[in-house]
Amino acid sequence: MDIKEKALGLHRQNKGKIEVNSKVKVESNEDLSLAYTPGVAEVCREIQKDETLSYEDTNKGNMIAVVTDGSAVLGLGNIGSRAGMPVMEGKSILFKELGGVDAFPIGLESQDMEDIIFAIKQIAPSFGGINLEDIAAPKCFEIEKRLKAELDIPVFHDDQHGTAIVVLAAMINSLKVVNKNISSVKIVINGAGAAGISIAKLLLRAGAINIIICDRNGILNAEDSITNSSKKEIAQVTNLERISGNLKKAILGSDVFIGVSAPNALNTDDIKTMNKDAIVFAMANPTPEIYPGDAKLGGARIVGTGRSDFPNQINNILAFPGIFRGALDARARDINEEMKLAAAYTIAKLVPEEELNEERILPKVLDKKVAIEVAKSVARAAIDTGISRL
Amino acid sequence: MDIKEKALGLHRQNKGKIEVNSKVKVESNEDLSLAYTPGVAEVCREIQKDETLSYEDTNKGNMIAVVTDGSAVLGLGNIGSRAGMPVMEGKSILFKELGGVDAFPIGLESQDMEDIIFAIKQIAPSFGGINLEDIAAPKCFEIEKRLKAELDIPVFHDDQHGTAIVVLAAMINSLKVVNKNISSVKIVINGAGAAGISIAKLLLRAGAINIIICDRNGILNAEDSITNSSKKEIAQVTNLERISGNLKKAILGSDVFIGVSAPNALNTDDIKTMNKDAIVFAMANPTPEIYPGDAKLGGARIVGTGRSDFPNQINNILAFPGIFRGALDARARDINEEMKLAAAYTIAKLVPEEELNEERILPKVLDKKVAIEVAKSVARAAIDTGISRL
Repeated sequence: MDIKEKALGLHRQNKGKIEVNSKVKVESNEDLSLAYTPGVAEVCREIQKDETLSYEDTNKGNMIAVVTDGSAVLGLGNIGSRAGMPVMEGKSILFKELGGVDAFPIGLESQDMEDIIFAIKQIAPSFGGINLEDIAAPKCFEIEKRLKAELDIPVFHDDQHGTAIVVLAAMINSLKVVNKNISSVKIVINGAGAAGISIAKLLLRAGAINIIICDRNGILNAEDSITNSSKKEIAQVTNLERISGNLKKAILGSDVFIGVSAPNALNTDDIKTMNKDAIVFAMANPTPEIYPGDAKLGGARIVGTGRSDFPNQINNILAFPGIFRGALDARARDINEEMKLAAAYTIAKLVPEEELNEERILPKVLDKKVAIEVAKSVARAAIDTGISRL
Repeated sequence: MDIKEKALGLHRQNKGKIEVNSKVKVESNEDLSLAYTPGVAEVCREIQKDETLSYEDTNKGNMIAVVTDGSAVLGLGNIGSRAGMPVMEGKSILFKELGGVDAFPIGLESQDMEDIIFAIKQIAPSFGGINLEDIAAPKCFEIEKRLKAELDIPVFHDDQHGTAIVVLAAMINSLKVVNKNISSVKIVINGAGAAGISIAKLLLRAGAINIIICDRNGILNAEDSITNSSKKEIAQVTNLERISGNLKKAILGSDVFIGVSAPNALNTDDIKTMNKDAIVFAMANPTPEIYPGDAKLGGARIVGTGRSDFPNQINNILAFPGIFRGALDARARDINEEMKLAAAYTIAKLVPEEELNEERILPKVLDKKVAIEVAKSVARAAIDTGISRL
């Protein structure tokens, strides 16, 4: 039986992957009188007097929504929220299993930006945080920006920031292995969607200077006329030499290739044009931009992919459970840049320096220690930057 | 320690009452590849091809939302959705414990009718049904009507129909005890909100003819000018003699009093003006319209309240878990009148005729058999009326 049949079987047999359970027992009339009427009335009155008690007396403080409109699901594209639900349920169970975070999947009817923002604002009172998932660029940027401004709970678009955080962690450790410095390497990012742009922003914040981003039409150059506002914005602070051309031109003489694009975007000859000790993160799923063997043949020293069947799996599972765990533990109002950087450095540090090598730049994705340590550093960063409610 | 302190302690100690769990294990990379990427992609593709597979491959078919705007919570009134959440969580756990239904509480930000309708339509793809809860009259009527028309999943406002169903069940058995007929008794309903109007409608459908409804201003009379559209509508088909006056005038010579109104609305002398073998359902919570002892002193033969500390607890816990269990089992598109009647007759039948007496007109609220039997009859009614998807 292949993986597709097994996956279908698992889902069908269990009728999905999540369930909602009670944390208290309701077996006797007394149980009922405490968990429901008449006792519950007193709990309601307390929250009415002081809304912060929602965090004490309801599950709000440990509950996030995993919200999608299904417009950019995995490598599948715009399949709609109903077809996207298996991914959202999968994400929800990972939040719980790895981060102890209760996460509830919500698939929205509309793919209109204003509808999405409105709907999420309407349901926000029930949740301690909002994880936006698989919403297409460029609307995902505006949706996140508006919700961050208008809600007082953390809002986090995982496709952007989760990916960026894990890429930064992988980069920190890869650069140690090859003994290069983030401020001096030439980095090429292929893909200018949610993930690509967010990776560029976080790398800049972590000290990278020389970044070139390519989209389907080649190198982003601020001197060209760019209509997409998020691409226009990132073009201002990348490709500082304002070069033009295609991906092949971009990677010539580069140190790091980061692919969040399409299968087979690169071949062995392309890798040969990179600098010595090249780092290649080929994260297109399930087929990478270039397979590790081909990249190595071209001279790459470190290769990472999104897949679990090759070394160096670069997967945001390493980030999101711990980030929300930390944000909720600190009752943070937001997830800010400092919290993201703290997460990336913590993930990197979880591979001890003496164990770092070409095939081990990241912790294992199911290592339960990761979320625990990420949560601690994220909570600390929230407190240090003054956005904790505690 | 009194019940208030105990209830607060229970909620605070557990930080609310619900949690979201995984139904599948994620311990190995293989687990991950089946429940999440890459295996999940195949499941998404299947649903994309055939949306009804949402019911097979995700938890949609067993998941309902318990949605409120917090505008009419219990006896507490308009306390807002945040303060109302302990009730929604309580309802959710009862759905699971008694009906095996996964229920997720959603508190909405806005109390505007159009906002509520819009938000619920947006989140509907994730759910197999919508239980509207504690939304004030008269907007609750329009909200339910619109959502029933515009969504293809069951929408059920429990404050209306759950209450009506259990009152009808209690009435069927009470009339057996006193040997009277539903078509000939005079019934007075005090309270013309969501519950009162819905009770009147269901009793009419079950064969009642002589119903008088009172609100704060006295007897509803179709000859008066009534601005509230739901009251105006129900006035057309009740109080057929078009009498006017106050509650005291209404109950004079009546056989059944149904209170969904305010504490202490009646006294012993009022009960004395009712017919022999009077039936009194005094359901104001937590303080009834009249206490059982006082009603008995006035000559009432059967008294029910909403409370667990007196005989004959009339509580919609007897209805909602089984109704949604049945609707979901039948994959019903709606919850229609036939399903509600089936639920009421089944609840009534669960007290064997030989056990029926003045202090035992309904099953116990935590009797697990109730939801099972209600579900069966509700599912059958859905199939018989052609609204099942099976």
